Amino acid sequence: MPVETITWKNGFCQIIDQTLLPEKLKYRRIRTAREMWEAIRALRIRGAPAIGVAAAYGLYLGIRGSKAKHFPQFLQEAKKTSDFLGTSRPTAVNLFWALERMLHVAESLKSFPIRQIKKALLNEAHLILREDREACVALGDAGARLLKNGARVLTHCNAGGLATSGYGTALAVIYRAIDAGKKITVYADETRPLLQGARLTSWELAHNHIPVTVICDDMAGYIMKLGMIDAVIVGADRIAANGDFANKIGTYGVAVLAKAHGIPFYVAAPLSSFDISLKKGRDIPIEERPGDELKICGGKRIIPEKGVGIFNPAFDVTPHPYVRSFITEKGIITPPYINKIPKLFR
Amino acid sequence: MPVETITWKNGFCQIIDQTLLPEKLKYRRIRTAREMWEAIRALRIRGAPAIGVAAAYGLYLGIRGSKAKHFPQFLQEAKKTSDFLGTSRPTAVNLFWALERMLHVAESLKSFPIRQIKKALLNEAHLILREDREACVALGDAGARLLKNGARVLTHCNAGGLATSGYGTALAVIYRAIDAGKKITVYADETRPLLQGARLTSWELAHNHIPVTVICDDMAGYIMKLGMIDAVIVGADRIAANGDFANKIGTYGVAVLAKAHGIPFYVAAPLSSFDISLKKGRDIPIEERPGDELKICGGKRIIPEKGVGIFNPAFDVTPHPYVRSFITEKGIITPPYINKIPKLFR
Repeated sequence: MPVETITWKNGFCQIIDQTLLPEKLKYRRIRTAREMWEAIRALRIRGAPAIGVAAAYGLYLGIRGSKAKHFPQFLQEAKKTSDFLGTSRPTAVNLFWALERMLHVAESLKSFPIRQIKKALLNEAHLILREDREACVALGDAGARLLKNGARVLTHCNAGGLATSGYGTALAVIYRAIDAGKKITVYADETRPLLQGARLTSWELAHNHIPVTVICDDMAGYIMKLGMIDAVIVGADRIAANGDFANKIGTYGVAVLAKAHGIPFYVAAPLSSFDISLKKGRDIPIEERPGDELKICGGKRIIPEKGVGIFNPAFDVTPHPYVRSFITEKGIITPPYINKIPKLFR
Repeated sequence: MPVETITWKNGFCQIIDQTLLPEKLKYRRIRTAREMWEAIRALRIRGAPAIGVAAAYGLYLGIRGSKAKHFPQFLQEAKKTSDFLGTSRPTAVNLFWALERMLHVAESLKSFPIRQIKKALLNEAHLILREDREACVALGDAGARLLKNGARVLTHCNAGGLATSGYGTALAVIYRAIDAGKKITVYADETRPLLQGARLTSWELAHNHIPVTVICDDMAGYIMKLGMIDAVIVGADRIAANGDFANKIGTYGVAVLAKAHGIPFYVAAPLSSFDISLKKGRDIPIEERPGDELKICGGKRIIPEKGVGIFNPAFDVTPHPYVRSFITEKGIITPPYINKIPKLFR
C-alpha cells in the first residue's frame, strides 16, 4: 500500500494533508465534523473513494459527543451533520453514498441505546474504509489483465492511493499489474488547475519506484500521436446508469483524444462511485470552483488582476461511448452499459 | 496597435520583456547580437513573426561595429552572427527567413562600401518590421470575414500583438473583426508550461478592452462540448508545403478536439511563416525545452525533485487535414493545400 491517506488513529481520523504535497508529507488529525468539512472542501483529502471514507468518519466525529437521550433527537443531529458534510463538495457521489449508509445504520438500530448506535457508526466507518481497500485490490486485479507487459499508460488527475484508503483506482490497476510481474510506464497529465497529476500521482508513483513522466495537459494529444501511449486509465467521481461519468476536468478531452488515436480508454472505479439514480451524465452536478485556482500559481499571479474572466469547472462529463470498459471490484464491465450497470446493484 | 512589442529606438532595438508580464510592463534595450540571442532564447521576445524581426535587428546589431575593410570579411562576420542567432530557437522559420533575407541584402550590395551595406541592413530590418505590421492588418482583415457577429473564439498560446510587431496573427483577426463592428468573445487556453495564454493573450486583450476568459488547457474539449466555442484560431511557427504546421505545444490537441466537435479550426500566419522547402510536418525540427519549465511554477516546486521524468516539447505538429483554412496577408487559403501553398511563392 503506498501511503496512509486516511486512517483512524488513537480515537481520531488522520489524513495526509495533500495540499502540502509534494513538498511535505504531513499528517493532520481531524477531530470534528467541521474540520472534516474543511479538509474535504480545501482538498486536503480528495478523490471520490477517499471522500466517502472521510464523510463516514466525519459523521461519526459529528455525533459521538451527542447528548441526545432519545433516538429521534439523535437521528436529527446525525442528519444535520450529514447535511452539513454533504455541502462540502457536490460531484463525487461517494460522499452522499457513505453518508446515507451511515444514516441507514443508525435508523436500523433505533431501538438500541444511543451509546451502542455510536459504536456501530464508528464500526460502519471502519467497514467503509476496509471495503474501499478491498475494492481497490479487486478492481486493480481485474484491470491488470487489460494491460500487456510493457504498456505505457496515460492517466489524468490522481486516482491513486492518495484518492482512496488503499491502492487507488486507476493506479491500483498499475500497481497490481506491476505486482503481477508486468513492466508498466506511466505518463501523468499534470492536471491543471490544481496539479494533482504533477503533485500527487508522480509523487506516489516515484515513492513506489514506478517509472512516471509528467506532461502538461496540452501535450496529451501529441504524445498519443507520437505513438507513446497504449492505454488511458482514469478514475471517476460519479457514474450515471448509462455509463456517462464525471471526473476531474480534462478527462473528457483525454477521452476524445484517445478515441481519435484508437487508444483504449478505461474507467476504474468502485461500485460506490456509481449513481444509478441518475439516468445520464447531464444530471450530475458539476462543482465550479473559485477563479483564484487559475489566477494564482505557486503563489504568483499568472493572469492580470482586472478585465479577464475565468471559467473553472472542477469536473467534466464524458459520455459513455468513449469508455472501452469500466474496471470495478466486480470485474470488467463492457458495453452496452445501460443494462449491465443497473444489474450490478441488484 | 496594442503595444510596442519590438521597435527601433534611439539607435537600439527595444523590446517588451514578456517574461515579466502580466505583472510588469517593462521595456528592455537590446544592444548586441548576444543580447538578442539571449532575449529570444529566454522568450523575452517570442512569437514567430516577432522573432523574425528580432533576428533581423540582431544581425544588424552584430555587424554594425564591424571593422571589416573588405566585403568577404564583412560577409563572413555577418554569416557568423547569423549562424549564432540561428541557434537561439529551432522551430519558427521566421528566424531563418529573416536572417537569410538580411544576408541576401548584404550579398546583393557586395560592390558597395561596407558603411552603406550596414545602412542597407538596418533599412532591411526596418522593412521586415514594417512588412510584418502590414501583413498583420491584411491577414486580420482577410480572417475577420470568417467570423460572424457574436462569435466566441478559442485561441491557444499568444498569437497576438505580443507575437508580432503589429496586430498579431490569430488575434489580428479578432482585432480587425471588432474594428469592423463585430462583437467577439475570446477564450484563451492558459497554455502550459509557460502560460502565454494566461499571461500574454489575456493581458493584451484586456488592455484593449476585449472580453476574454482564461481556461486551463484541459478545459478546451469540455467548453467545446458545452457549445461555447464557434471557431478556433491559432498562429503558426512553421508551415510545410503540404499545410502541416508546427505551433505551440497543445495546438494539435485543440485541432483534434475542434474536429471532433465540428468547429472550424483556422491558422493565421504571414507568408514568412511558411517553409515550402519542407514537404511535410515531420520535417519540422521541434524544440525540446528544459524540464524545469514544468517542475517549477510561480517559483514553487510542483513536481517531486527525484524519480520523476519530464517531457517538454515546446511545439507540436498538426497535420493539414485539421486546418479549415490558412489566413494570410494574401487572403484565405483553402484545401487542397499541396498546390496552393507553393503557388503563393511563385
